[in-house]
Amino acid sequence: MRKVAIIGVGMTKIGHLFSESLRSLFSKAVRGALEDAGSPKIDALYLGNMSAGQFNNQENIAALLSDFAGLNGTPATRIEEGCGSGAAAIYTGYKAVASGTHDFVVVGGVEKMMDTATNDTTSITSTVTDQEYEAFLGLSLVGINAMVMRLYMNTFEVERESFAKFSVQMHDNASKNPYAQLPFKISMDKAMNSDPVAEPIHLMDCAPIGDGAAALVLCPKEYAKNFASSPIEIIGAGHGTDHFIFHTRNDFLSLKATRDAAREAYRMAEITPGQLDLMEIHDTFSITAFLTMEDLGLVEKGAVAQAIDEGLISLDGPLPVNPSGGLKARGHPIGATGVYQMAEVVLQLRGEAGARQVPGAETGLTNNISGFGASSFVHILRS
Amino acid sequence: MRKVAIIGVGMTKIGHLFSESLRSLFSKAVRGALEDAGSPKIDALYLGNMSAGQFNNQENIAALLSDFAGLNGTPATRIEEGCGSGAAAIYTGYKAVASGTHDFVVVGGVEKMMDTATNDTTSITSTVTDQEYEAFLGLSLVGINAMVMRLYMNTFEVERESFAKFSVQMHDNASKNPYAQLPFKISMDKAMNSDPVAEPIHLMDCAPIGDGAAALVLCPKEYAKNFASSPIEIIGAGHGTDHFIFHTRNDFLSLKATRDAAREAYRMAEITPGQLDLMEIHDTFSITAFLTMEDLGLVEKGAVAQAIDEGLISLDGPLPVNPSGGLKARGHPIGATGVYQMAEVVLQLRGEAGARQVPGAETGLTNNISGFGASSFVHILRS
Repeated sequence: MRKVAIIGVGMTKIGHLFSESLRSLFSKAVRGALEDAGSPKIDALYLGNMSAGQFNNQENIAALLSDFAGLNGTPATRIEEGCGSGAAAIYTGYKAVASGTHDFVVVGGVEKMMDTATNDTTSITSTVTDQEYEAFLGLSLVGINAMVMRLYMNTFEVERESFAKFSVQMHDNASKNPYAQLPFKISMDKAMNSDPVAEPIHLMDCAPIGDGAAALVLCPKEYAKNFASSPIEIIGAGHGTDHFIFHTRNDFLSLKATRDAAREAYRMAEITPGQLDLMEIHDTFSITAFLTMEDLGLVEKGAVAQAIDEGLISLDGPLPVNPSGGLKARGHPIGATGVYQMAEVVLQLRGEAGARQVPGAETGLTNNISGFGASSFVHILRS
Repeated sequence: MRKVAIIGVGMTKIGHLFSESLRSLFSKAVRGALEDAGSPKIDALYLGNMSAGQFNNQENIAALLSDFAGLNGTPATRIEEGCGSGAAAIYTGYKAVASGTHDFVVVGGVEKMMDTATNDTTSITSTVTDQEYEAFLGLSLVGINAMVMRLYMNTFEVERESFAKFSVQMHDNASKNPYAQLPFKISMDKAMNSDPVAEPIHLMDCAPIGDGAAALVLCPKEYAKNFASSPIEIIGAGHGTDHFIFHTRNDFLSLKATRDAAREAYRMAEITPGQLDLMEIHDTFSITAFLTMEDLGLVEKGAVAQAIDEGLISLDGPLPVNPSGGLKARGHPIGATGVYQMAEVVLQLRGEAGARQVPGAETGLTNNISGFGASSFVHILRS
């Protein structure tokens, strides 16, 4: 297997972008990444998208979007893995370069969620859960997370304040991110007293709905120096899966898929969590972030609240989490999220993250999950 | 790159299977393929499906279906490439084994089209065409094919009878195929005088709508002998793309994506079309089959009608086309079709195709396209 580097990054600002379409968003991200990489000739495109079929009445989007992005004639493949579609595309593209199948690969993610064909975004996002045993019975993705949050609060004696502090931190970070959908700070009062969505989850515990696209250019590390002044290497990659239906799992307070993916990625990268300088994780809801930080080995089970209080994950702390603002405040255009996470870590490791720069960052991790952890991807990058 | 062999095949009969679900169909096909292969331990699953989101309100299906098929814990990836999703999954799985990324891989395709959430199957199938420049203006997939068929008939002075003869042949073949959705013969009178769908296309020029799943087990050729008495090698693989929107192409009577994919596959296999013993091609409509046979190099442009009259493609002819009955009569469960095509060729090359066996078949080709040839996959197999 060859070593693989990222030599280009492109992103659109996330938002309710009624003047942008699926194709215009994706084209902008790809053009940005290609320009950033120095315009190498591209051998293949891997594209992460969850639901252009339901959101935009458009399938067959690999062929469509490669054509509109100026990559006509390039073999293009669409990967769907729910909310983890972006990282799934990265993982497949990474393997293609590592194995020698392709040299220069664009990996992109896009989701156009506003102005949809059906305008029923909550139903569509819940199609990442099981339609026969969960959604059919009225259990949506937020419903699963709400049950888990209540169980977590009872098991570890944690109050809603601790979750609210996480959301406040995410908005603090996003306020420094020009790509963020919600680039403003919120108060603890606002976080605590926002409208309930599914108790104990309130609005400020939830990632927003938005449109966006992000793209990366990958190539063998040995070629990277010709194209980028600061190539960033992918030193670890892991993919884990769990039983699909929530109630069939053994442990409701741990994401097995994330534990498995992290173990594989850490082993490959030959590092421990303590050696990371930052991470971008999947905080669809604040409870998802809590479980994830524990399952990635950042802290022990039940210890996230205390870690937040001690400043562990703050932008100026020992291990900043989601300097971008995370899904909560940077935004969560579903199939693009995994690519946004990696784009952020690349900018951080290049020292190009502006006001949200983590000083001296050399090693970063991304974690993107599908559904409530039906599958999970962990990538580790080094400058 | 390692040589890759197919060591297992599984299929369900195609039909209006109201008692089967997306997951039950897929599980049956995978279990069949694993049993046929001698139950090796599987390293990865690649799954082709066009539109579980629109048909079944279910996304995130790689994690879902791997769990239900008994492959929980196996990294699973869903590939969507419209009507070409099945071959796209094969192509990705083939590359994964050839490159050394994985050893034992299941490639499956599934589509559950009946009993859908919306019951608007024509609209959903048209989402493989462009929603902004084609579908929005009322141009469906059958509409594009109808315009091309009329142009073809005028350009090459071909009558509807020639297309009807193709459909009659497909039903003849399907009548010998226990997996076929429409396993009965039709008369020339029935083919000619079926209801018009979009003139000059009549019902008997069209593939039916149906449910089905098919699966294959792939592994390095060097390991294949331990698992299968008759491993079938993939000796050629090609992937071509064209401009997505029909009216932006230079030639309306040729599928550039198929020509490109075929050139790549023939070169890799080091054979010419004349050396093939059979082929399974993508006859969504009879006109699609005509263009495809020409673009695959079977005959010159405009010469298919004469070739059919001379018996070239008959089951007992020099180069049988679609011994399975093709999309027309075996059926076209969209995301599974490419896998059904390859499963048929594997059975033929093993000599296990029963009443539809092509005697002494050693080399076969499959061609699966997306939309009206936005992308195209060609694979060549040898016993």
